[in-house]
Amino acid sequence: MSQHITVRGFVATDPTIRNAQAGFPVGNFRLAATDRRFDREQNAWVDGNTNWFTVNLFRSLAQNAFTSLQKGQPVVVTGRLKVRPWETEERSGTAVEIEADTIGHDLSLGTATFQRSSGRPG
Amino acid sequence: MSQHITVRGFVATDPTIRNAQAGFPVGNFRLAATDRRFDREQNAWVDGNTNWFTVNLFRSLAQNAFTSLQKGQPVVVTGRLKVRPWETEERSGTAVEIEADTIGHDLSLGTATFQRSSGRPG
Amino acid sequence: MSQHITVRGFVATDPTIRNAQAGFPVGNFRLAATDRRFDREQNAWVDGNTNWFTVNLFRSLAQNAFTSLQKGQPVVVTGRLKVRPWETEERSGTAVEIEADTIGHDLSLGTATFQRSSGRPG
Amino acid sequence: MSQHITVRGFVATDPTIRNAQAGFPVGNFRLAATDRRFDREQNAWVDGNTNWFTVNLFRSLAQNAFTSLQKGQPVVVTGRLKVRPWETEERSGTAVEIEADTIGHDLSLGTATFQRSSGRPG
Repeated sequence: MSQHITVRGFVATDPTIRNAQAGFPVGNFRLAATDRRFDREQNAWVDGNTNWFTVNLFRSLAQNAFTSLQKGQPVVVTGRLKVRPWETEERSGTAVEIEADTIGHDLSLGTATFQRSSGRPG
Repeated sequence: MSQHITVRGFVATDPTIRNAQAGFPVGNFRLAATDRRFDREQNAWVDGNTNWFTVNLFRSLAQNAFTSLQKGQPVVVTGRLKVRPWETEERSGTAVEIEADTIGHDLSLGTATFQRSSGRPG
Repeated sequence: MSQHITVRGFVATDPTIRNAQAGFPVGNFRLAATDRRFDREQNAWVDGNTNWFTVNLFRSLAQNAFTSLQKGQPVVVTGRLKVRPWETEERSGTAVEIEADTIGHDLSLGTATFQRSSGRPG
Repeated sequence: MSQHITVRGFVATDPTIRNAQAGFPVGNFRLAATDRRFDREQNAWVDGNTNWFTVNLFRSLAQNAFTSLQKGQPVVVTGRLKVRPWETEERSGTAVEIEADTIGHDLSLGTATFQRSSGRPG
């Protein structure tokens, strides 16, 4: 079973795009998502931990995100979580990625004008 | 614990807006969301059941959705599910609602131009 | 896209089981799930709305739930939401169902002893 | 907003428990969760990527998980995702954690006998 996750956050790097070997466009961007939690002592909502993700994009979503998203914009991302260990000759680490099903601008923080793609989505 | 849910679907009615007694704008629209499932006999993804929701909007999200969303557009909605029985003198039924945390246009199906709100979100 | 949902609640009816025409066991039970929300005036968490669901079970999960679950027990259910209109000659309504991927007893409210099934899950 | 996530997987280390400075029990265990994806060439579901998580437990859930869970058992975990960078003098990395709301044994893979806690949950 996949681990579905929905994250609201901010685009931290402009999306990239390239044509993958598979023959369709792929891209990615970094997403920063900060928890809000209710602090009973302050009787107010306060910022908590910030989670960082690499959001992976495929096909029409890669194309449209590249056209539509800019660094600093608030978005909602839904997709499948991937936690991948990586290793080079010199270093190793953990990549926390979301393979996005879709993304939208966060309409609680602004307005958007939408243009439907002409063809069928890839 | 709330029942968080994320739904991709299509705006089935233009969003409404009104000023609630609480002193901030509220609105709603109908959302249609159709399952996709893999059919092994056809070896293809096919349409399944369509779920219908009333999406409830509050404060800045109600205002921005009213400005941004139109009937027929694809969206992603995330929020809390409410299943409410209702009853009038003549009839009774069940309302299936989402109290939206946020909404965005579905960028797998088109492009969007975003304009950040000037003030702090309500 | 399916609408995945995870719900914590209480088993409101003992699970049923029957052998479906498809040749594997199916069953269901009613689940009651009550929101908790933070009330700023009371400075405390209070009960909110109660959502009611019919939880549908298939194959080994139907068999094991029938053996393991009893009315009144707290559970966590994860699966896909189905909102189905229904109609008879006399009445119509809306069924709110979860096709369960899996279920477990809620270990924040008690302890459990687990016995792995001997065969492969159906 | 928190990033809610539900994960099915296997307990990879026996849960620990200790009394935190805050005055209530805390614990954790490692969880391994393997994707299943439909491979169209093979016309079958196959194993995909394995995600590893540290699951953090608090209060009654820490106590009951310590009593109930054993390495190798299948579980469903629901909670909030935390992606934390860490650094020592010698190394740095990324911790991928779930602050569990609750956990249950996966009843699609076995049966369970449940015992409600006598007191109110912590």
